[in-house]
Amino acid sequence: MIDLKKAQQLILDATPVLGRESVPILDALNRVLVEDITAVQDLPAADISAVDGYAVCHGSLTGASPSHPASLRIIGEAPAGKPCRSTVGTGEAVRIMTGGLLPKGADTIVKIEHTTESGNTVTCNTDPGTGAGIRFKGDSLKKGDVVLHAGDTVHSLEIGSLACLRRAYVTVHRKPLVAIVSTGDEISDFHEPPALDKAMCSNLYALAAQVLETHATPLCLGTVPDDLEAQKNVLSEAMRADVIITSGGTSRGKYDLIHKAFASLGLETRFSSIFVKPGKPTIFGTIGKTLVFGLPGNPSATMLSFEQFIRPALLRMMGHLNGSDASPAKSNGNSRNDPFAQIDSFNRALGGNKAHLRPSQVPLGNIRTGNGRPLGRQTPCHDIQTDQLKVAAH
Amino acid sequence: MIDLKKAQQLILDATPVLGRESVPILDALNRVLVEDITAVQDLPAADISAVDGYAVCHGSLTGASPSHPASLRIIGEAPAGKPCRSTVGTGEAVRIMTGGLLPKGADTIVKIEHTTESGNTVTCNTDPGTGAGIRFKGDSLKKGDVVLHAGDTVHSLEIGSLACLRRAYVTVHRKPLVAIVSTGDEISDFHEPPALDKAMCSNLYALAAQVLETHATPLCLGTVPDDLEAQKNVLSEAMRADVIITSGGTSRGKYDLIHKAFASLGLETRFSSIFVKPGKPTIFGTIGKTLVFGLPGNPSATMLSFEQFIRPALLRMMGHLNGSDASPAKSNGNSRNDPFAQIDSFNRALGGNKAHLRPSQVPLGNIRTGNGRPLGRQTPCHDIQTDQLKVAAH
Repeated sequence: MIDLKKAQQLILDATPVLGRESVPILDALNRVLVEDITAVQDLPAADISAVDGYAVCHGSLTGASPSHPASLRIIGEAPAGKPCRSTVGTGEAVRIMTGGLLPKGADTIVKIEHTTESGNTVTCNTDPGTGAGIRFKGDSLKKGDVVLHAGDTVHSLEIGSLACLRRAYVTVHRKPLVAIVSTGDEISDFHEPPALDKAMCSNLYALAAQVLETHATPLCLGTVPDDLEAQKNVLSEAMRADVIITSGGTSRGKYDLIHKAFASLGLETRFSSIFVKPGKPTIFGTIGKTLVFGLPGNPSATMLSFEQFIRPALLRMMGHLNGSDASPAKSNGNSRNDPFAQIDSFNRALGGNKAHLRPSQVPLGNIRTGNGRPLGRQTPCHDIQTDQLKVAAH
Repeated sequence: MIDLKKAQQLILDATPVLGRESVPILDALNRVLVEDITAVQDLPAADISAVDGYAVCHGSLTGASPSHPASLRIIGEAPAGKPCRSTVGTGEAVRIMTGGLLPKGADTIVKIEHTTESGNTVTCNTDPGTGAGIRFKGDSLKKGDVVLHAGDTVHSLEIGSLACLRRAYVTVHRKPLVAIVSTGDEISDFHEPPALDKAMCSNLYALAAQVLETHATPLCLGTVPDDLEAQKNVLSEAMRADVIITSGGTSRGKYDLIHKAFASLGLETRFSSIFVKPGKPTIFGTIGKTLVFGLPGNPSATMLSFEQFIRPALLRMMGHLNGSDASPAKSNGNSRNDPFAQIDSFNRALGGNKAHLRPSQVPLGNIRTGNGRPLGRQTPCHDIQTDQLKVAAH
């Protein structure tokens, strides 16, 4: 039997970072870049206007002021996206909009606020200095600049950046496929008739939802009875996944067969018991490159174990190696990411301390560490190094 | 021109809560229940064992102790999901596992820890009292109990609860369909050849990602030039959506046509200018039941405006009426939900203060409130009542 911290470390040590795939940028949302993203051209690609105004040769208005304005002849217009083909000479101006391409001959832009237009003439009452009002080629980015880095997570801002850089597709770590199996003679699914001695396979759906919340891909393989051959068959089918999660049958009772089923498939067991409650009979090992988690059937233990053990592994697989995202237990008050707040509300939703989703469920108020100390929300638990299970105080 | 707070209120006042649809529970993730969810039967549905042990008649071991143990004959076994059909009489016991159905005749379960089994006999060294070790029918939930409420958001815990209650499908508010159009002669998409005077329609993809991050459905309608007929045509196509977002063309320049295009479709304008910078030329109105947002083309303004104006509206449409989720600006340090942290990293990704994704982009360090005061991260901005734009300090 090992402690929580050691268990978490053993899991991460055995967890590979998955390979790459190229996806359309919107499909890269919440995923991690495999590659640095570099600018393939300067940004802007040419000298353009930063303001609405008039493009001129600076020599045309040197020393202009309200008392000595410069009058220039308007020879054309350069809206954004519609370049002016004329060349600006001394005494001439081209009307230009923000983003408009700087016309040939011009080296300065006077803001519209400092001008008066009348007929074909614009009067400028200021000398803004050579180069004013221009965003020069490469001002924002030079060709070859690294804009995003391998390891960055893609959110909406990164998608904007990628689109800006003309990246329609981008290479990210692939998502793990996570096979989920619920075991036990007493477990039934939606299609089976209700019976007094049967309980719904709620863990199957809760785990699938947790996998989806982690942005990985669930592969729901349904329920399987306490029958060794049946368990071996479904696990063989599950072997094509990157991760296998089972719930139930992890104790050492007469009807707890999952140990044998795992062994028959060649499980290299890393641990089969953890010094925490609930969640003590948790199995972890590998079969080839597939991570295998045997979770106890108790719904609270199952969901907490997912947060403590499996979510960090899935995040690592997807390239989330650093930062708070990889923490198994967050304390930022965001209940979506806080398994303890989740379990608390789960319990409340099902009737408070009396809540039992399945026969074996331990009331959450009784959750204790291995040394028997009851746990409360005040226990800090900031990162994966924690050695304590933290739960909502009742 | 109105202030930010008034603008946000006008939007929410015009925003309907969308109707219902029935979806498989895993598709309900992050969505809001339209209906209360009640237990259709007691949970547990029958008296079952809460422990591993022996089911007995209490009279068989009244007063038992280590010095005066009671010996009982084992007449059968009741694993979870495999009921024992025998009736337990005085002097008899049935081996029972956690979750096993209480056999007829039994009224007490002795934990395995307080017994010794030998041959067909179990010796009990304690009297746990009548009813010990049993989870009685309805202990957790009574038929008719409300387990989840209309308005609750569905996360993994709620999915576990729904499955437990045999709800394969559940009724939630439908997701808004959000049409997105990027306007401007200078705007091009991936399939168009790069040109010196063109900029990619990065807003189109950034907005689609923001819609996805809000768990709504984007309908990307691409780019449209500064041409009134073309804009009217694409907006007509967009009318089947619940929300239309355009970017660009909202100023009052010669080539800013979106006002006219909106007017031709009968836009009931609620406001067309806000006392903030960037984001001042933001249009909001309705055409029938469709909400219409005309955002400026500046990428920072576009993304910030989405967070300030559109995300709260989408959340309200999906039934997220209460709580912090509806806040346009969170300050919990979670950058995924904090538009200002996002904009900060956006800016960093594109070269710091010099960042310009499109010609008109205002450097973020210059973002100010309408009264010209520069804004810093220290400005609190906790809810939709805020009247200040908050940005990362540079």
